[in-house]
Amino acid sequence: MSLQTRKILLSENDIPQYWYNIKADLPALPGPPLNPETGEPLGPEALTPIFPLGLIQQEVSLEREIEIPKPVREIYKLWRPTPLIYAANLKKALDTPAHIFYKYEGLSPTGSHKPNTAVAQAFYNREEGIKRLTTETGAGQWGSALSFACRMFELDCKVYMVRVSYEQKPGRRVLMQSYGAEVTPSPSEDTEPGRKILAENPNSPGSLGIAISEAVWDAVMHEDTKYSLGSVLDHVLLHQTVVGLEAKKQMELAGMQPDVLIGCIGGGSNFAGFSFPFLQDNLQGRANYRAIAVEPEACPTVTRGPYTYDYGDTAHMTPLLNMYTLGSGFVPPPIHAGGLRYHGMAPLISYLCHEGLMECRAYHQNAVFEAAVLFTETEGILPAPEPAHAIKAVIDEALAAKEAGEERVIVFNLSGHGYFDISAYDAYLAGKLEDYAYPQEKIAQALEALPPVPGA
Amino acid sequence: MSLQTRKILLSENDIPQYWYNIKADLPALPGPPLNPETGEPLGPEALTPIFPLGLIQQEVSLEREIEIPKPVREIYKLWRPTPLIYAANLKKALDTPAHIFYKYEGLSPTGSHKPNTAVAQAFYNREEGIKRLTTETGAGQWGSALSFACRMFELDCKVYMVRVSYEQKPGRRVLMQSYGAEVTPSPSEDTEPGRKILAENPNSPGSLGIAISEAVWDAVMHEDTKYSLGSVLDHVLLHQTVVGLEAKKQMELAGMQPDVLIGCIGGGSNFAGFSFPFLQDNLQGRANYRAIAVEPEACPTVTRGPYTYDYGDTAHMTPLLNMYTLGSGFVPPPIHAGGLRYHGMAPLISYLCHEGLMECRAYHQNAVFEAAVLFTETEGILPAPEPAHAIKAVIDEALAAKEAGEERVIVFNLSGHGYFDISAYDAYLAGKLEDYAYPQEKIAQALEALPPVPGA
Repeated sequence: MSLQTRKILLSENDIPQYWYNIKADLPALPGPPLNPETGEPLGPEALTPIFPLGLIQQEVSLEREIEIPKPVREIYKLWRPTPLIYAANLKKALDTPAHIFYKYEGLSPTGSHKPNTAVAQAFYNREEGIKRLTTETGAGQWGSALSFACRMFELDCKVYMVRVSYEQKPGRRVLMQSYGAEVTPSPSEDTEPGRKILAENPNSPGSLGIAISEAVWDAVMHEDTKYSLGSVLDHVLLHQTVVGLEAKKQMELAGMQPDVLIGCIGGGSNFAGFSFPFLQDNLQGRANYRAIAVEPEACPTVTRGPYTYDYGDTAHMTPLLNMYTLGSGFVPPPIHAGGLRYHGMAPLISYLCHEGLMECRAYHQNAVFEAAVLFTETEGILPAPEPAHAIKAVIDEALAAKEAGEERVIVFNLSGHGYFDISAYDAYLAGKLEDYAYPQEKIAQALEALPPVPGA
Repeated sequence: MSLQTRKILLSENDIPQYWYNIKADLPALPGPPLNPETGEPLGPEALTPIFPLGLIQQEVSLEREIEIPKPVREIYKLWRPTPLIYAANLKKALDTPAHIFYKYEGLSPTGSHKPNTAVAQAFYNREEGIKRLTTETGAGQWGSALSFACRMFELDCKVYMVRVSYEQKPGRRVLMQSYGAEVTPSPSEDTEPGRKILAENPNSPGSLGIAISEAVWDAVMHEDTKYSLGSVLDHVLLHQTVVGLEAKKQMELAGMQPDVLIGCIGGGSNFAGFSFPFLQDNLQGRANYRAIAVEPEACPTVTRGPYTYDYGDTAHMTPLLNMYTLGSGFVPPPIHAGGLRYHGMAPLISYLCHEGLMECRAYHQNAVFEAAVLFTETEGILPAPEPAHAIKAVIDEALAAKEAGEERVIVFNLSGHGYFDISAYDAYLAGKLEDYAYPQEKIAQALEALPPVPGA
């Protein structure tokens, strides 16, 4: 590879034809979702009130390759394949022998990796005659992706947006409305869970847990409506593997093998999508890549939480999932990386971390933004606060390579840009960003309320 | 061309090696800049206090091809070549036989075409030992591009940002600061023109005219500092021709000849850069492309103004330029397309319009946003309000092709995304966007104060 080349580009013909299902290659599987009443494994049929069959089948499939439908690939063409970029300027600034590459997902219409699964989910719903999707969103990264996807397949879309974000961060709300979605601050008067919370507290700022309850209730109550989730579940992670499948081909074109793969984890989908196709080589004994998942010290699910069973939402409307958790009642501090403020973790990511097949580490907010600004100054792109966590780890690994005097190859997923997160940078540059220590007591309290482990 | 292909991509080797100078092919030249005191043509030496020699030479060059320095091409590689995209969904929504393509410049680090010239300008200044650049900015599109470019070449950068934008639109201010630029609300206490205005009116909201005066004064007063301009001048338009040179090659790959080329005009640089390489074919008798420049009805420089000589700035610190103008004292209504709120027009664009080599039309604000939302709903990308003017014309031309039953080929420049212009969409979707009629009386008043045409 000539290092004169900055971007490793693929053609539209290189958009993957299938998604990669890591479950076909795992030595064992994470525990199945359980019915919280009975403690019994949940059959696929239990999910039919909220998900279409096409997605439920993918959720339980053990096939290695699952074909990407042509209409989905057609929409992927609007922005895929995304470039793999050689971070020559960052390397120079760090004076490191390490080679740093980043897969850039910020070029999608809504600026992150989220449309990769949103488009697929909208497609399978439309195939089964569904007319309308509901979902929750915090700062709006997921809500805007689903709004876009619904518009592409001519579905109606209703987004329950956490009220405090709805009021403070109009950017992505307006983007959702530009795609024709109906956006409601949550808690709302539109649903029973919303009305109940408003009756108790008319000024409730809302939370993701509440918004999930509203969106699920709405889907259950309307015949032609289903619910859509932006991370955590196996089928969501599956759809994101287009990222890693492309990146793997691009590394082959670059003629380099990764030593370290890095990404941030909130629900887990972006790093899963990026790393799983590489980890297939580890699982099949062809490689020994390190994979480092990065989370915030303010919400240290994998680094500090137990590996157990917990609810996916605050209101306990979901099944019990086998995962790392900080307790479903834990409300993370208001760090700017809203996409990482989740008490749980995708069961597949949890499993890999627990089995030692993936490393995990946590950073404080100011260190993350310091890394993000160095990246902006050198590579020009303002990263979203979520992947800025990955950048902090990349810099640490590049400096470790310098210390060791080794030409290590570091590849990371820059899952989105930070154009809508400008207030976070404003606070950081003004020296007003809070660091938020590990919230030990609040977490201990939330963990006390964990459900008993079924069968234990 | 297979219409299954959405994006026509080039490799980094296809980044142009030279900029195209249309002056080599024009039948005659626009009148030269004049000294306002004497009415005599201004020699290049008059510009040395504010511009480096490398750029002054480009300003007066008649060479057809001007080589792009390697360090500039290296930085272009961060985002160039940009894709040419086939607007299949928009075509379908309009049910038109027309083929619509757009060159997408929103993928640059700051989200518009502006870095194409900012990087070149920073390079030539650094070559001549300059340590610091000053400029003005309104909403920040140009200021953020220059801040980025200065960071790439390790120059200091000071941006005088119109105070009302500084306070109301923090987005691009923070982006500039992330690149390490110093951003000052204008009028400021830092310059004599600023202090003078603040003494008269401590609450002055500022204007581009005032900010230009401050930035020029700052450059003149500091030994190692020069001034940088984001549009209007010949060398700025020259640098933007990378856009059209790439697009021309991409249309060849698509196997299609344009019938119509469309872009918006404020100072004129984006449409110049996009259209000039195509117009070379017209000027050399090989083609007969229509070129349509689009401006706002609220600031209708070419469609309503006289073709004469006027100052480039409000404070009359610039030479007299041969151009269409609404009078340098005209303050355009606060339309959201801040980049189109300029009383004058690039002399080269003015000349082409005056000679009938380019068409020009104007649209009202709400019609422009209606077009922008249709584009968002179909193509997924939220356009900046400036190129949304081009989109309105594209839709009109596509419907005219439908009316005529002709497979016309329409190619336009989508010069930037609208992620930082979300308040404009918020107002439009809420039905609260003002339309701003042609401000006939204010323009008539400003035109009364035009300087006498030298030699007339």
